Amino acid sequence: MTLVQEKVRQAVGLLKESKVDCWITFTRESEINGDPTLVFLAPGNVTWHSAFIISADGRTRAIVGQLDQKTVEDAGAYDQVVGFVTGIREPFLEYLKELGPAAIAVNFSKGSEVCDGLTHGMFLLLQDLLAEIGMADRLVSSEKIVSALRERKTPAEIENLRAAVRATEDIFASVAKFIRPGKSEQEIAAFMRQEVARKKLLPAWGESTCPAVFSGPETAGAHYAPTERRVERGHLLNMDFGVKVNHYCADLQRTFYVLGEGEKEPPAEVRRGFDTIVRSIELARQALNPGVEGRAVDAVGRQAVVEAGYAEFPHGLGHQVGRFAHDGTALLGPMWEKYAEKPLRPIEEGMVFTLEPRLTVPGHGIATVEEMVVVTKHGAEWLSTPQKELLLIR
Amino acid sequence: MTLVQEKVRQAVGLLKESKVDCWITFTRESEINGDPTLVFLAPGNVTWHSAFIISADGRTRAIVGQLDQKTVEDAGAYDQVVGFVTGIREPFLEYLKELGPAAIAVNFSKGSEVCDGLTHGMFLLLQDLLAEIGMADRLVSSEKIVSALRERKTPAEIENLRAAVRATEDIFASVAKFIRPGKSEQEIAAFMRQEVARKKLLPAWGESTCPAVFSGPETAGAHYAPTERRVERGHLLNMDFGVKVNHYCADLQRTFYVLGEGEKEPPAEVRRGFDTIVRSIELARQALNPGVEGRAVDAVGRQAVVEAGYAEFPHGLGHQVGRFAHDGTALLGPMWEKYAEKPLRPIEEGMVFTLEPRLTVPGHGIATVEEMVVVTKHGAEWLSTPQKELLLIR
Repeated sequence: MTLVQEKVRQAVGLLKESKVDCWITFTRESEINGDPTLVFLAPGNVTWHSAFIISADGRTRAIVGQLDQKTVEDAGAYDQVVGFVTGIREPFLEYLKELGPAAIAVNFSKGSEVCDGLTHGMFLLLQDLLAEIGMADRLVSSEKIVSALRERKTPAEIENLRAAVRATEDIFASVAKFIRPGKSEQEIAAFMRQEVARKKLLPAWGESTCPAVFSGPETAGAHYAPTERRVERGHLLNMDFGVKVNHYCADLQRTFYVLGEGEKEPPAEVRRGFDTIVRSIELARQALNPGVEGRAVDAVGRQAVVEAGYAEFPHGLGHQVGRFAHDGTALLGPMWEKYAEKPLRPIEEGMVFTLEPRLTVPGHGIATVEEMVVVTKHGAEWLSTPQKELLLIR
Repeated sequence: MTLVQEKVRQAVGLLKESKVDCWITFTRESEINGDPTLVFLAPGNVTWHSAFIISADGRTRAIVGQLDQKTVEDAGAYDQVVGFVTGIREPFLEYLKELGPAAIAVNFSKGSEVCDGLTHGMFLLLQDLLAEIGMADRLVSSEKIVSALRERKTPAEIENLRAAVRATEDIFASVAKFIRPGKSEQEIAAFMRQEVARKKLLPAWGESTCPAVFSGPETAGAHYAPTERRVERGHLLNMDFGVKVNHYCADLQRTFYVLGEGEKEPPAEVRRGFDTIVRSIELARQALNPGVEGRAVDAVGRQAVVEAGYAEFPHGLGHQVGRFAHDGTALLGPMWEKYAEKPLRPIEEGMVFTLEPRLTVPGHGIATVEEMVVVTKHGAEWLSTPQKELLLIR
């Protein structure tokens, strides 16, 4: 069974669960304004107005431009694929009249970007079309359906994520031998990008900050591209990096310490900072169980850092990972405006999260580690090999 | 001057022209639901809710998550870049109160996908925010501003397009030596993809149909991936292909004829089909001038095919090209539902179009050529080296 077949089938079950009788993914020129849900519903991009219509009773139909018809048919996921030449209106309205749904879920959400693939112009167009058959007021948000479709990972999806984590860890191991005092952040990043290319992998996010490399006490903060700053003795160095395997991402951070002249081991304040991060991750992992709210897990990880006397990190403790490095709706974060309702969503089996607390060790730099875990009914299990010791550069 | 600086400056002029005093590009997690306009306004993706606010009086401000702040600042295109930690609400509403715009243009459009980057969830969120300061009813479509920003190509953009066309033509020249009777469409496509990789280029659209390769009378139609069908003597073979250079696309089609046993030249009906395509393109090119509506140019190219006794092609005569292979709003097409108002938009200087009529030669296959031209005040000039003769495979 292909991924598209698997996901279309999963969607029918989710519709039943959510008590919505019809779900439509409505898109056009998906190369330009791609709905992030489309990859689960079609084998590639679509050109013209396209509707992927799934019903709780199991009926499935795609209506697409004629030139895309054969590609979608070949995915073998729909009862019928209808192709049109001049416009979608007629075949679309005809089928909806046949279905007569009480509610029509479409992909918009104020609070969750992965569930918000329908553009405003396409929403207005859909309303105009549905008004012709008296159904304009039946549109509802598909947020719950789309979230679950992305978040409840199938075994095949977990296998892809494991492979991406392994490939990412391999490159961290290679770069550990490359880092020396005097190398610049840009040189280190270039080495890692070359490894990605040599292994015919893809970066998990935009190449300019994948990897992100931060050295010493004057770093600009996460998400900023590597600079010409050079690795110095006595500095902390950390990296945020991941690759994709079969379209699934890894997102990991590792922290290195560059031993000072004559130093045999890191100074006590550096070790204390790093150990606080490790402890924060482990406590959070233990708190990460099905049914818990994400904000509770964030609070555990955050408290471990604050209690040890460090400033609160200016971001959530962890996010989901999938086709995107930042994926899913449920989030391990505080109730900040930008997170909307995400931290209130209950954790479910099959979700894959990062755990990534951060703190500053004055005079040395930033200690931050990012691990990946999968939620099972018995708790959160490691997908990554957790970093328990500082990686030392001599 | 970087592209972002150039485009932000161009936008101020477009605002004055359109008599809108404020334009906001509002996006989040642009890796997931990217607004296609963002590449002109920021040097990379943004993570949190982000607003790029340009005023007709020349004031420019970006409000982004703190971790994206330095990257956007470094682009040097905004008077001020504000970073936030917990949410965009406060800095955003404060600045809008200061500006007090009469109308706020945002990126939605029923008829033009490149102007429709704002998702419906983000539109609702923006309405909620603006309602707090009594501005919720000031939102208007930015379609004209965004269209012109994409369509009026700067000299640097034209240079990138020329380079993409040259690189695409080079690969067409290489594959012409590779094609032989017995080679499959998939083998031909694989050869071309290898050339793209070897030259460190990127395909102009999704790799599965770039190139698209169609051989013989039984082809599935455009946009369908290459099959195991093998090249046969007496068949027409055509390809749709393009690469990107500096993010700008080429999109060209070329037609080959595989000489039959003992044939010295193509049969008369094949030549007549091909010559009709060449004539259609040349007549359309002559009709393509500033101020003309796209539908009039489509009609000229279409008429040349129909008058010669062939069926009408089931698509527009040509589309704009830019960062996407299908770009811009104005279109050389008939007034079909799926094209909305696009064929009514007047042609402007600086627009880059394809010209791509198509017809079937019964028993042989499809004749179709796609050229690229740029509109100048003196008319449409070739960007590609036009194909005037069938490419013969012996």
